Amino acid sequence: MVALFLTLTRSNLMSLSIFDHPWLSGLFGDAEMALILSSDRQMAHMLAFEAAWSRACGKAGFFDEEKAEEAARAIEAAEIDLADIASGMSKDGVPVPSLVKQLKAVAPIDAVHKGATSQDVVDTALVLTLRDASTLIADRLAKLENSLKDLETRFGDAPLMGRTRMQAATEITVGDRVLAWRLPLADHLATLDKKRADVEKVQVGGPSGDRKALGNKAEFVVAEVARALGLEATEKSWHTMRHAIVGYASFLSLVTGSLGKIGQDISLMVQQGIETATITGAGGSSAMPHKQNPVAAELLVTLARFNATQISAMHHAMVHEQERSGAAWSLEWMVLPQMLMTTGRSLVVAIELVQNIQRLGDPA
Amino acid sequence: MVALFLTLTRSNLMSLSIFDHPWLSGLFGDAEMALILSSDRQMAHMLAFEAAWSRACGKAGFFDEEKAEEAARAIEAAEIDLADIASGMSKDGVPVPSLVKQLKAVAPIDAVHKGATSQDVVDTALVLTLRDASTLIADRLAKLENSLKDLETRFGDAPLMGRTRMQAATEITVGDRVLAWRLPLADHLATLDKKRADVEKVQVGGPSGDRKALGNKAEFVVAEVARALGLEATEKSWHTMRHAIVGYASFLSLVTGSLGKIGQDISLMVQQGIETATITGAGGSSAMPHKQNPVAAELLVTLARFNATQISAMHHAMVHEQERSGAAWSLEWMVLPQMLMTTGRSLVVAIELVQNIQRLGDPA
Amino acid sequence: MVALFLTLTRSNLMSLSIFDHPWLSGLFGDAEMALILSSDRQMAHMLAFEAAWSRACGKAGFFDEEKAEEAARAIEAAEIDLADIASGMSKDGVPVPSLVKQLKAVAPIDAVHKGATSQDVVDTALVLTLRDASTLIADRLAKLENSLKDLETRFGDAPLMGRTRMQAATEITVGDRVLAWRLPLADHLATLDKKRADVEKVQVGGPSGDRKALGNKAEFVVAEVARALGLEATEKSWHTMRHAIVGYASFLSLVTGSLGKIGQDISLMVQQGIETATITGAGGSSAMPHKQNPVAAELLVTLARFNATQISAMHHAMVHEQERSGAAWSLEWMVLPQMLMTTGRSLVVAIELVQNIQRLGDPA
Amino acid sequence: MVALFLTLTRSNLMSLSIFDHPWLSGLFGDAEMALILSSDRQMAHMLAFEAAWSRACGKAGFFDEEKAEEAARAIEAAEIDLADIASGMSKDGVPVPSLVKQLKAVAPIDAVHKGATSQDVVDTALVLTLRDASTLIADRLAKLENSLKDLETRFGDAPLMGRTRMQAATEITVGDRVLAWRLPLADHLATLDKKRADVEKVQVGGPSGDRKALGNKAEFVVAEVARALGLEATEKSWHTMRHAIVGYASFLSLVTGSLGKIGQDISLMVQQGIETATITGAGGSSAMPHKQNPVAAELLVTLARFNATQISAMHHAMVHEQERSGAAWSLEWMVLPQMLMTTGRSLVVAIELVQNIQRLGDPA
Repeated sequence: MVALFLTLTRSNLMSLSIFDHPWLSGLFGDAEMALILSSDRQMAHMLAFEAAWSRACGKAGFFDEEKAEEAARAIEAAEIDLADIASGMSKDGVPVPSLVKQLKAVAPIDAVHKGATSQDVVDTALVLTLRDASTLIADRLAKLENSLKDLETRFGDAPLMGRTRMQAATEITVGDRVLAWRLPLADHLATLDKKRADVEKVQVGGPSGDRKALGNKAEFVVAEVARALGLEATEKSWHTMRHAIVGYASFLSLVTGSLGKIGQDISLMVQQGIETATITGAGGSSAMPHKQNPVAAELLVTLARFNATQISAMHHAMVHEQERSGAAWSLEWMVLPQMLMTTGRSLVVAIELVQNIQRLGDPA
Repeated sequence: MVALFLTLTRSNLMSLSIFDHPWLSGLFGDAEMALILSSDRQMAHMLAFEAAWSRACGKAGFFDEEKAEEAARAIEAAEIDLADIASGMSKDGVPVPSLVKQLKAVAPIDAVHKGATSQDVVDTALVLTLRDASTLIADRLAKLENSLKDLETRFGDAPLMGRTRMQAATEITVGDRVLAWRLPLADHLATLDKKRADVEKVQVGGPSGDRKALGNKAEFVVAEVARALGLEATEKSWHTMRHAIVGYASFLSLVTGSLGKIGQDISLMVQQGIETATITGAGGSSAMPHKQNPVAAELLVTLARFNATQISAMHHAMVHEQERSGAAWSLEWMVLPQMLMTTGRSLVVAIELVQNIQRLGDPA
Repeated sequence: MVALFLTLTRSNLMSLSIFDHPWLSGLFGDAEMALILSSDRQMAHMLAFEAAWSRACGKAGFFDEEKAEEAARAIEAAEIDLADIASGMSKDGVPVPSLVKQLKAVAPIDAVHKGATSQDVVDTALVLTLRDASTLIADRLAKLENSLKDLETRFGDAPLMGRTRMQAATEITVGDRVLAWRLPLADHLATLDKKRADVEKVQVGGPSGDRKALGNKAEFVVAEVARALGLEATEKSWHTMRHAIVGYASFLSLVTGSLGKIGQDISLMVQQGIETATITGAGGSSAMPHKQNPVAAELLVTLARFNATQISAMHHAMVHEQERSGAAWSLEWMVLPQMLMTTGRSLVVAIELVQNIQRLGDPA
Repeated sequence: MVALFLTLTRSNLMSLSIFDHPWLSGLFGDAEMALILSSDRQMAHMLAFEAAWSRACGKAGFFDEEKAEEAARAIEAAEIDLADIASGMSKDGVPVPSLVKQLKAVAPIDAVHKGATSQDVVDTALVLTLRDASTLIADRLAKLENSLKDLETRFGDAPLMGRTRMQAATEITVGDRVLAWRLPLADHLATLDKKRADVEKVQVGGPSGDRKALGNKAEFVVAEVARALGLEATEKSWHTMRHAIVGYASFLSLVTGSLGKIGQDISLMVQQGIETATITGAGGSSAMPHKQNPVAAELLVTLARFNATQISAMHHAMVHEQERSGAAWSLEWMVLPQMLMTTGRSLVVAIELVQNIQRLGDPA
């Protein structure tokens, strides 16, 4: 009998996300996006905020600039006890109180986090993550666009029976169909520029989001922290104004939606009896070794529908009461990283799939 | 005994939409947006497309310009038999085949719809609707912004206990909270300009979306139809590229999400024991005449969650196979008009609610 | 130029629901379900509750039984001013305060609605609607089951290439595929019995849902009202316990999901090149008269995805605060009637589609 | 400067799920449910199926029973190379082809997996997982029910101002409110029994789901495999009939929805100014050490809304084309495990929260 009771260890648990599951990650994983979203990177971003904060407060004269620099360096070099953070998380609902306590143990107490609040740290870390993700997504969108252009060059003039409502309509060319795959990507790239500008903004508000703890130095501190982190300053904290974040998530789902359309088309094109596409790298079956399953094409549809579902939660999270909603904010945490992983994976799959196309067009 | 079996007449059925239900519309209705979305207006938009199409094809030399003008005028003056359209709809899945048949009965046959396809008509009519809706939404966003500015003027300096995670945090001012209500609106207005540019584009593709039926006059015809309708021309039909429409729908849900936050806040503020807001116009109870229910505030939350749900369907509709997906396209029809009604209503309710505020701030 | 500005009349507004839109209803409408959901029927149910309530309270001795009967008859015969109800709705968020006011004008004041609350009336009316809808759905499920059995009889032994992951797998029979269409229906019929028992329960709670206004007669009144309306009594009002209603909605989406699978299959089967199904009654194209579009099959997919989206809102509406949430409750009103219409229509379409099948199986 | 570029190792990636994230898991993690969903356990279930399959096929006479036992034991003892499975997964879209190849390397080739298909293995493993999860959920539902009964005993008679539409209504008792928290749990427990019966069924279909590969031994093999695994046999494979699985997922979301209502209530009750509940174990703030945030109560709302969103994807996954849809099936994998984790966590949080209640009722 197979042993059903295993010791509960970290490694046994490494399966709760399809994106890093021991074997499902073979289909769903994206190592580059995973790195961007990794906890190490998240922690680095949180520490980067805290260090920038200490330095900015020093420059603002809240304390000695040398002490600020000492604090910032200690923060940057801090070895964080993650178990302690997890323990604090379970009680506080955010990692920051425990993190700050650890930082105060290695840096001058009064030069750490003073005047900031948990959400400043976590949200700023989030936008630093989004910045990295955006760069990766932009690269891949451009690469996919080029791969599709290449398809147009190779097969664009080939005749293809146009199909509407699943029925043969009039003859078009491969180029006509592929153009409808490619044009959205240029729009998405342009939209991404706009969305980056919307979200790459420092989060600074302090306890109730009003920056009052910074007195008349608020504008200065915000600008300094923003500058240090390469983000934009803001007029007001966006603790409860989540439209930019939700708009960014919408962008992600638009991308996977466009790629889902490509996948749906290709899975229809490779059907026996239709055969208007030939792809390599198709998948095998445990029962029928002869089969060539359009796994990548189907996966694009799956990922599109996943994001099309998740985006709803992001919109629900806009109902964010008073100066901070633990309930609404935490919902973002459950959803947005998955949308990023899904989008990253979808782009990789689409690029590979398009590059694996051997032939497009009506069979001779 | 109350009669349970009623004759099935049109009027009995007029209850299937909460937006024009005999009594539910009292809460959910929006006469101005309803007019924009009315079937009369939709039909007018479809006829406007067909008339512009005939004229453009005449100018392009597909037939005599006089015949074109004759066709266009006959189309514009046509009295449409809606029951016949409904009957065709049930068979064809689109209203256009029946409509075109009716138009050909009153206008020169070969100057009607030639080279166009159903989706050209329906989608162009949609963007004409969206154009009207956008104007209405922009007006209301601006009005709400002003109403909120007025609140800031009246109560901005009043002290208010800031609340995070439902708990008293630090004292802020009313202005701090209201600013978080108002700032998103300016962003939404700016976004709306962008979204209008994205969607106000003529749909011209013909049978399989490739404009081949127009030969080398395609660019000319597209430009002419676009000009006549006050829309932008496009390089290619967007039959299957739905990201602009879905992006527009996302915008709608961002608006209702921001307003839902206002509603949630106000419904919390009027609680006995909290009493940081006083509103007039609150609702009564059938059992407790003394009650003042924050009906409008709650409704903003309802409408936000409704749109937050619907937006998911729009994203699913991006998986639009081949040259036209009846399944995906029809899903938009079920959802987008409701999102417009919801957004329109939400803005009206928010404006009224804000104007009904008598007092904001901690009780003396 | 086509007139764009129309007088705002009721008829112009009759387009806000796809289910009773002048022409879209040709595709989406369902006259029988529409009748069940009609406002006349809803009002009749509300009056039936109020009449039963008066009689039950009379029997309980809160007032004279003759007065009770007089009140009940006046309620049943009342001509309701719907505009007044709509006006009250906009203020109160529920139709009942205005309705009760009208009823008190025609019936003995102290024998009307006393001890009840708005939600008792509206929710009880809802379950009476659900009861009618359930009967219709059950009839249609059984009819569809029979139509599918008939398909199995006619074509069950015909060979059909099985397809997995969109690829030819091994040869099966038509019967194998159709059985997978039919078996879920029997499960749905069994589930419906269970769901009916879950929801067909009178709603009686009074002001804060505790039945205190009825004193030691509460159990008696609940039982009497339930008996009069043919519903089950309950231990406690279910004002805030929405799981039965949401479970019912889940059932609806399970039905349309199963039918969506049938539609997806058939739309794939009628593709040229596959041709494992031939159907009559397929739709025409405005541009290509030769086309036979599988409109009904596609529509089943659309309706499935619509319900698959709406069900999310129903689950969100379970977060129903305190003794009554206006926000959560109203969200149900926006969604559940549409789910019923969608389910009703889906069943009609499926039955017709299956009956329109001329041939199933691999082409000779 | 904090190091932003880290070596890509397994441990860096251990953050992609909020449920086992180094620190977010402190809030969202559930070790017991995680164990049930662990990859080790999933693999054990897949091997259990393959071993049962070999034995059943031996008994059916497809090969020698001794060879069958030899194969089964080799399968149960097999050390699986997960990296190889992951690699196969990326190509095949399922783990089974690689798994079977590994098993054939250690067991008699013709006694392994013959006549089965990937989906038989993966779906049967899933229902074994669901069985374990159901037991855990049932235990916790009962525990929560008892904790609520205890609350009723301790505070049930205390007066509490009933609140409807966020406004004070009439005075009720604590018992009235808590009863509305508790009663749904009994219904959920009863529903769970039904759902268990619906899903705890072996999946056996073979290549195209028709069991043809088993000839006239199909019924025997299905019964044997079912018996060995403690599952029910079925008349037909349920490869494409997903209503039982989706119905199970609906149940999960009903549970979290009911718990979300409790959380919403408690987060409203602990507001300063309302103070109808006092809880211990509330969370701290990085900026305001005095605060007692109702983190657990808010989390229940978050988890309810997460599941209320995910359930939509499950319903979309019912549109499962032909004999197997890679696209629809994979969507379940992305969503259902998360719904289980969310439900498990929600129950733990609710139990703790209820046990941490120190006082309920209007302040003296």
